[in-house]
Amino acid sequence: MDLIDLLLGRPLATEEEKAERIGPAKGIPIFGLDALSSAAYGPEAALTLLIPLGMAGVAYIVPISISIIFLLAIVYFSYRQTIMAYPQGGGSYTVASENLGVWPGLLAAASLMVDYVLTAAVGISAGVGALISAMPSLEKHTLALCLAILIVVTLVNLRGVSEAGAIFRVPTYLFIFCLLAMIALGVIKTLASGGHPVPVIAPPHLMGTAEALGIWLLLRAFASGCTAMTGVEAVSNGVMAFKEPASVTARLTLTVVIGILTVMLAGIAFLCRAYGVAATPPGQSGYQSVLSQLLVAITGKGIFYGVSIGSILVVLALSANTAFADFPRLARAIAQNGFLPHGLAIRGRRLVYTQGVYALALLAGTLLIVFGGVTDRLIPLYAVGAFMAFTLSQAGMVMHWKRVRGPGSSKSMFVNGLGALATGLTVIIVLIAKFTEGAWITLLLIPGLILMMRLVKRHFDYVAGETDNGAPLNIRDLTPPIVVITIDRWSRITQKALRFAMTISPDVLALHVDYDQESDTLASQWAQLVEEPARRAGLAGPRLVILKSPYRFVIRPILDYALDLEKNNPGRQIAVLTPELVEFRWYLNLLHNHRSAALKALLLFQGDRRIMVINIPWYLTDQDARP
Amino acid sequence: MDLIDLLLGRPLATEEEKAERIGPAKGIPIFGLDALSSAAYGPEAALTLLIPLGMAGVAYIVPISISIIFLLAIVYFSYRQTIMAYPQGGGSYTVASENLGVWPGLLAAASLMVDYVLTAAVGISAGVGALISAMPSLEKHTLALCLAILIVVTLVNLRGVSEAGAIFRVPTYLFIFCLLAMIALGVIKTLASGGHPVPVIAPPHLMGTAEALGIWLLLRAFASGCTAMTGVEAVSNGVMAFKEPASVTARLTLTVVIGILTVMLAGIAFLCRAYGVAATPPGQSGYQSVLSQLLVAITGKGIFYGVSIGSILVVLALSANTAFADFPRLARAIAQNGFLPHGLAIRGRRLVYTQGVYALALLAGTLLIVFGGVTDRLIPLYAVGAFMAFTLSQAGMVMHWKRVRGPGSSKSMFVNGLGALATGLTVIIVLIAKFTEGAWITLLLIPGLILMMRLVKRHFDYVAGETDNGAPLNIRDLTPPIVVITIDRWSRITQKALRFAMTISPDVLALHVDYDQESDTLASQWAQLVEEPARRAGLAGPRLVILKSPYRFVIRPILDYALDLEKNNPGRQIAVLTPELVEFRWYLNLLHNHRSAALKALLLFQGDRRIMVINIPWYLTDQDARP
Repeated sequence: MDLIDLLLGRPLATEEEKAERIGPAKGIPIFGLDALSSAAYGPEAALTLLIPLGMAGVAYIVPISISIIFLLAIVYFSYRQTIMAYPQGGGSYTVASENLGVWPGLLAAASLMVDYVLTAAVGISAGVGALISAMPSLEKHTLALCLAILIVVTLVNLRGVSEAGAIFRVPTYLFIFCLLAMIALGVIKTLASGGHPVPVIAPPHLMGTAEALGIWLLLRAFASGCTAMTGVEAVSNGVMAFKEPASVTARLTLTVVIGILTVMLAGIAFLCRAYGVAATPPGQSGYQSVLSQLLVAITGKGIFYGVSIGSILVVLALSANTAFADFPRLARAIAQNGFLPHGLAIRGRRLVYTQGVYALALLAGTLLIVFGGVTDRLIPLYAVGAFMAFTLSQAGMVMHWKRVRGPGSSKSMFVNGLGALATGLTVIIVLIAKFTEGAWITLLLIPGLILMMRLVKRHFDYVAGETDNGAPLNIRDLTPPIVVITIDRWSRITQKALRFAMTISPDVLALHVDYDQESDTLASQWAQLVEEPARRAGLAGPRLVILKSPYRFVIRPILDYALDLEKNNPGRQIAVLTPELVEFRWYLNLLHNHRSAALKALLLFQGDRRIMVINIPWYLTDQDARP
Repeated sequence: MDLIDLLLGRPLATEEEKAERIGPAKGIPIFGLDALSSAAYGPEAALTLLIPLGMAGVAYIVPISISIIFLLAIVYFSYRQTIMAYPQGGGSYTVASENLGVWPGLLAAASLMVDYVLTAAVGISAGVGALISAMPSLEKHTLALCLAILIVVTLVNLRGVSEAGAIFRVPTYLFIFCLLAMIALGVIKTLASGGHPVPVIAPPHLMGTAEALGIWLLLRAFASGCTAMTGVEAVSNGVMAFKEPASVTARLTLTVVIGILTVMLAGIAFLCRAYGVAATPPGQSGYQSVLSQLLVAITGKGIFYGVSIGSILVVLALSANTAFADFPRLARAIAQNGFLPHGLAIRGRRLVYTQGVYALALLAGTLLIVFGGVTDRLIPLYAVGAFMAFTLSQAGMVMHWKRVRGPGSSKSMFVNGLGALATGLTVIIVLIAKFTEGAWITLLLIPGLILMMRLVKRHFDYVAGETDNGAPLNIRDLTPPIVVITIDRWSRITQKALRFAMTISPDVLALHVDYDQESDTLASQWAQLVEEPARRAGLAGPRLVILKSPYRFVIRPILDYALDLEKNNPGRQIAVLTPELVEFRWYLNLLHNHRSAALKALLLFQGDRRIMVINIPWYLTDQDARP
């Protein structure tokens, strides 16, 4: 247990939950990391689609970024309201199922699950990808690096929300500082030079292929840029993790995150146009990320460049952490409604929903292994999930305000309605623009998940219907069971089992399977050592039953006998008692047969409701042999 | 079960054992294959060592082969006597332990185990090696081919001795026919040409490096050639597998096997000299096996050549079968004396010692995997084991005849004594000649195995001492146990468990772990639905105990409570009763927690002798859900 304490920290009592709650300083690394890190790939994704336009295309990043920031603002105001209305945690799932009904709720749940699993996998593999483009010699270790990061993030999250926030604080704030400093410096230089700054190191010049600008190209660039908005929902889902007053703290955190993200998106767009930085074709030689180009253009290749690039790598890799903070909370909300196994709703030793963390690690790990650690093909999938969840959440809030009429509710309804409309439109744009790139997979995956959750719920409902009991205890007919003991030879183990059997019932049968045709000794010992003393004590001696086994089967005859006994004694309970030698060293178990375990499994599986199985452990007296 | 019937055949009753017994026709493929197949590599191994002498060395194969045949004759007469003296099966282990004592017996056992495991692995990899030298494109599948053959041989042996004999009959007799026909043809051609036959295709000529012939070289060539004698012990070990009168049938089989092997060894040596066939350096380009050279020299590259080479490949690969026939019998004899787990002495569905077959398959498979299917470096190891076993067996027989004085016992003693001396000398020669090539590993391995068997025996003796019981059943003090039920909520499952508990004891405690601070409902239900009706029936109502669990552990509080109960109630037995939902589809088990299984394991492991565990299964009524 000490190793576990060291790895995961001491157990936290349920009452310590308050102390685990976090303020904005830790809230940003936990719930904001996903949103903030997307500044590193959102603008780049939009610019990549503008490559065919040559240097002329760079100018379009400004209107595209303005549209995205506008959308972000709408979503921000909507979520502010959601947080206030749902201080218990208002994830899309909760809001949609409470206001729109079960099916929209499940649609939001499935969308978010897809989104979080992909966020975890894609975040880690993006970070490792960036690291490899800096150090190409690491390429052969791609998968190993991805899995190592996954394990670290999983362990940190198992240690609890507060510790995760503390651990991830340094890289997060370094990243924020570097990017904001770069933007400030770049803007000053641009203004000082009258809008035409001279880059320290000039970015590569794109060949101007004179392709005409079409609305279709702009829409696709916008759809790609929208990946910058994933992760915005995280805070609203995790309100309960914040210090009291939770809603206020959460809202403050959301404001800071969105504020920083807005500055980053706007600054990057402005500087790209000012310095003439375009995207370079990914996957080709000479590729350099947009942020890297901006950094060298503004500051040159010095220490600042190195620190900034390093913090970008780390933050990308750790953006998976937001998924780890939110997925377990989402899974818990779904499980509490019976759509996922109840274990997901149980808090582990550090007050996090341990099984949700495991589930996410398992799913993300599987994705990483299947794709060998290179998951960029999955990026189109997850913008769909995120925006679907946004839309349902906003739509749910509209219904919420319609129900909870009060001062200002019309205004709130308008804000959320606008959000629903904008994000709904975005879902459609992303779906169409990214359909052939893989968004269609989401269209199959999400209904599959919904179906699975419905089936889980149906099964739990069925089990509850079968086992729920409002009736009082039935006291009648408490006849002791018929006890069947399996016996190999007359030993102290047998005697212990027999004595236990005789304490719980007067009807005891000892079964011996005669597979090697040598049962005469046992029969005579039985008459002399068991039946004789029992008779003298005036008890009905336990009867010995010898089962012939011409095919040398041992388990089958016992099983058949017990099932026959059950059939021939309607209303009686049958207790099958298997004496077992307990060895304290695992390798010693290799020396013995494990028939009793097999018998137990088969009895429970094939028996009807009236067969019970009793384990009688036998320990060797040598206390040294105990661990 | 139908698939198993198809794969392994229907179960055989113990009484059908007689029908499974075999005559010489099946005995040769089963117990003679190892010995006969060694004609394909024994002479070659000797000739390989003579390569440095050039073509002049070829002549020495005749005296070397004569020495080997002489040794073979001695061993043959010794084993004839062993078979008659031990009609129950007189393997080296039995003979040595009965006549020389426990330690020599274990030495023989360990030597033979090493020998058999290596025979299985080396036989298969030699066959595959020969196949690959014919079809080099298969090389990348070496290991897969080896494992496939291992699986086939294992399955065939699991189907029983008789079937294995029937299946392996065709390739065995084809091999015997081809080799004998080649020898007959070659001898006729040689005699017809006055001792100087003209080869159809001339064998490659060796460069005559004028190295002087030394006694050391001759001894090493002899030691290598002795691998031709491994497998001779097999028949004497398997006497019980033969038709009655078993000794006579076994002796007849041995005579036929040794007769054929003698003709083969003599014929190959004679023809090598007559045709001037030397070994070619193995592992180099231009390598061709001695038998292949002989075949083309005598018959040319026609159909006969193809069929013969094919049968040699198959017989080499199947020579592993002899190990599969004998190892389980050996392991059974050792297990019956308590030096190996008893399971090895139990006959499976087809009357073979199934666990011995599995053990051999596992060990040989491990060797093949570790060495990637190329095991020729292991060959020196196994001649040591085989000759060590020969020696101990003969020495044991000397002591046997000394004890069982009778007509002809002095003559028998002389024959076995001569055998012991000859094989003992051979062990020393092989050990010295092959020491640096790996025979030293055997010198470490065999004592290791002996130590392991001693420790197994000591543990079994200890367990027997702890559990053996000659005393009659103790009838006093049959107080019913204190029954502890673990309860989550008041359900039909709980009610069933509670009713069972009340039938076996008046002392029933219901434990509820309050990990989510919501136990008030249960407490009030308990008072109303359980205690109230019990009181009305005049029974001491089962008491509800609520265990607080601030750290949300569920198993630990129950475990601690049960262990405390055990400590505070000396002399009382504690029965912990865990209600369990039985799901009939494996994936449905993913939906539930498995605390009861964990609790059971911990209770049995940490409890003392007085804690029992009772499983109360609960089945859903839906009969469609059953398999």
